[in-house]
Amino acid sequence: MEVVQVLHMNGGVGETSYANNSFVQQKVITMTKPITEDAITKLYCSTYPEEIAIADLGCSSGPNTFFVVSELIKVVDSARRKISQKSPEYQVFLNDLPGNDFNTIFRSLSIFQYKLREQLGPGIGPCFFTGVPGSFYGRLFRKNSLHFVHSSYSLQWLSQVPQGLESNKGNIYMASTSPPNVLKAYYEQFQQDFSLFLNCRSEELVDGGRMVLTFLGRRNDDPSSKECCYIWELLAMALNDMVLEGVIEEEKLNSFNIPQYTPSPAEVKYEVEKEGSFSIDQLEVTEVNWNAYQNETDLSDAFKDGGYNVAKCMRAVAEPLLFSHFGEAIIDEVFRRYREIVADRMSKEKTGFVNVIVSLKKA
Amino acid sequence: MEVVQVLHMNGGVGETSYANNSFVQQKVITMTKPITEDAITKLYCSTYPEEIAIADLGCSSGPNTFFVVSELIKVVDSARRKISQKSPEYQVFLNDLPGNDFNTIFRSLSIFQYKLREQLGPGIGPCFFTGVPGSFYGRLFRKNSLHFVHSSYSLQWLSQVPQGLESNKGNIYMASTSPPNVLKAYYEQFQQDFSLFLNCRSEELVDGGRMVLTFLGRRNDDPSSKECCYIWELLAMALNDMVLEGVIEEEKLNSFNIPQYTPSPAEVKYEVEKEGSFSIDQLEVTEVNWNAYQNETDLSDAFKDGGYNVAKCMRAVAEPLLFSHFGEAIIDEVFRRYREIVADRMSKEKTGFVNVIVSLKKA
Repeated sequence: MEVVQVLHMNGGVGETSYANNSFVQQKVITMTKPITEDAITKLYCSTYPEEIAIADLGCSSGPNTFFVVSELIKVVDSARRKISQKSPEYQVFLNDLPGNDFNTIFRSLSIFQYKLREQLGPGIGPCFFTGVPGSFYGRLFRKNSLHFVHSSYSLQWLSQVPQGLESNKGNIYMASTSPPNVLKAYYEQFQQDFSLFLNCRSEELVDGGRMVLTFLGRRNDDPSSKECCYIWELLAMALNDMVLEGVIEEEKLNSFNIPQYTPSPAEVKYEVEKEGSFSIDQLEVTEVNWNAYQNETDLSDAFKDGGYNVAKCMRAVAEPLLFSHFGEAIIDEVFRRYREIVADRMSKEKTGFVNVIVSLKKA
Repeated sequence: MEVVQVLHMNGGVGETSYANNSFVQQKVITMTKPITEDAITKLYCSTYPEEIAIADLGCSSGPNTFFVVSELIKVVDSARRKISQKSPEYQVFLNDLPGNDFNTIFRSLSIFQYKLREQLGPGIGPCFFTGVPGSFYGRLFRKNSLHFVHSSYSLQWLSQVPQGLESNKGNIYMASTSPPNVLKAYYEQFQQDFSLFLNCRSEELVDGGRMVLTFLGRRNDDPSSKECCYIWELLAMALNDMVLEGVIEEEKLNSFNIPQYTPSPAEVKYEVEKEGSFSIDQLEVTEVNWNAYQNETDLSDAFKDGGYNVAKCMRAVAEPLLFSHFGEAIIDEVFRRYREIVADRMSKEKTGFVNVIVSLKKA
């Protein structure tokens, strides 16, 4: 693994997991369910393998960790019942960065397995679970050892902050005011990382193996467009206010940039075709409201406080990065301000996360 | 996994790892090194596989966790260099109970991998590490997916306290005063567990795959002989003293038994032959002093306090069991008394742990 992993190297709180297990993410997984179901069904029904090795990359630790895997196993089990086939054995690899809380996952595993067996009945084959710590921008598994790879809301994270962002002053991500070389640096880092990802997975997947990848992304061709950058611009506003008040040093803010890239479907397609190991089965874009709870009718009013929900969700994502760059002292105040700014904007305009979902088959 | 796992079900502190990472264990691993080296060399040199999947069962989390694996990889790497063969890829499965601290293992993995690469040079193939939570008295891996299984100081733990120990009053393990039905119950539980272990591993290992297993054991045919039971009898003494003083209820002590069995080489051999999947390549017995530090010349006097060292080592093993049965309040006092008793006996007689090592090949 030659890639410099900034997320690893931050140490302490910076050494975190890829995905945050938010309600947003669960909504996204549910939205992408038809695509995932279609892919795993095609995989199973092409050869009816006696064993299926599934990897969830960026599994995090929380309610969503087992959600995806149980959905995949249920789909296969339903397909094999229809044709009275014996259940395959399942090998499940749960991957995330080494700082992820694997202990919590492992300690809740027996309850999960018990429930799964109860739901699916006695015919279900054994399910072997393993934890795989490490960056997916490098090899994680043996050659030809995987049948299915799933990754949700993790691949927008870059392996590192791109080099050459000195001119991105006042911004913390790509923004409408970012100079062209900043946009270029971000895009090139995405290209390098995603290409490496595809290359590693193509070595690890068997021929005919499949992947369903969901990125936080964008529809627009412009990588600094509002649909993907606005949420970070509002965080930059809070930080800039604190610079003006002398709470944060200007230099400190200028050297802070988020290691993320939210690609368009065309950019994803371009990298897949360039790398050459995979064919695209489906490529779709969906959208979910910033406040994923908004249309839930059976929730208390507390959950409908959009500013609170979005700030909380973004805090889970951004806190480790802010903590390791700015220190602990500013964190509460940053997110107090951020919550206010977000609440104000959400009351005035429609705001959503764009998701790019791609279903791939190893050619 | 149908086996009732008492060690799991204790919950909280009872949900611990199999092995304790003591200096004793490291000495034992070093003593068994010639057997382990021989086995992995034979494995590698029989087919020169392009990938080697190694499982360490009962890996615990501590200095010994990576020790075994790095020794195995070094042996293979030395063998392949001699014949100028390209390095295989390594898949390492680190297994222990779900309560084991996998987070600590995973967070120290990158340093371990860096050091290993530095020691072995650039030719070394990729090493993929995964954590596998679960009892080895059940299937843990896919069929035919392992080449080499290692387990040290874990297999003497039974899957549960044997049934029918009501008559073992005043004892906490097999003892010279245990009635015959108690010895029988312990032995039958060992037979059932070890047979299941062999059966599961035979499904998971490839043909020609190998295992090196080290048990805390005994030489004597009598399972209640002093060489294996004395260390627990001394702990029972401390507990019985506290019963006499009214600190512990007699009934509480009578219902407490250690889920362990320390087999003789003959018993190990008998189960292997009965199960039938493996042939025995080597079967040996070694001994290590209760105070493993005793003959170390470059240690301070503190390490030479045998009573302290043995009580500390046994506390790491027994505390979770005592805690969940008797509660936290008595723990410090039990081990204070135990330390005194052990120190007294060690000053008067020669005391050691017997190790039974078996090297097996899947027939």
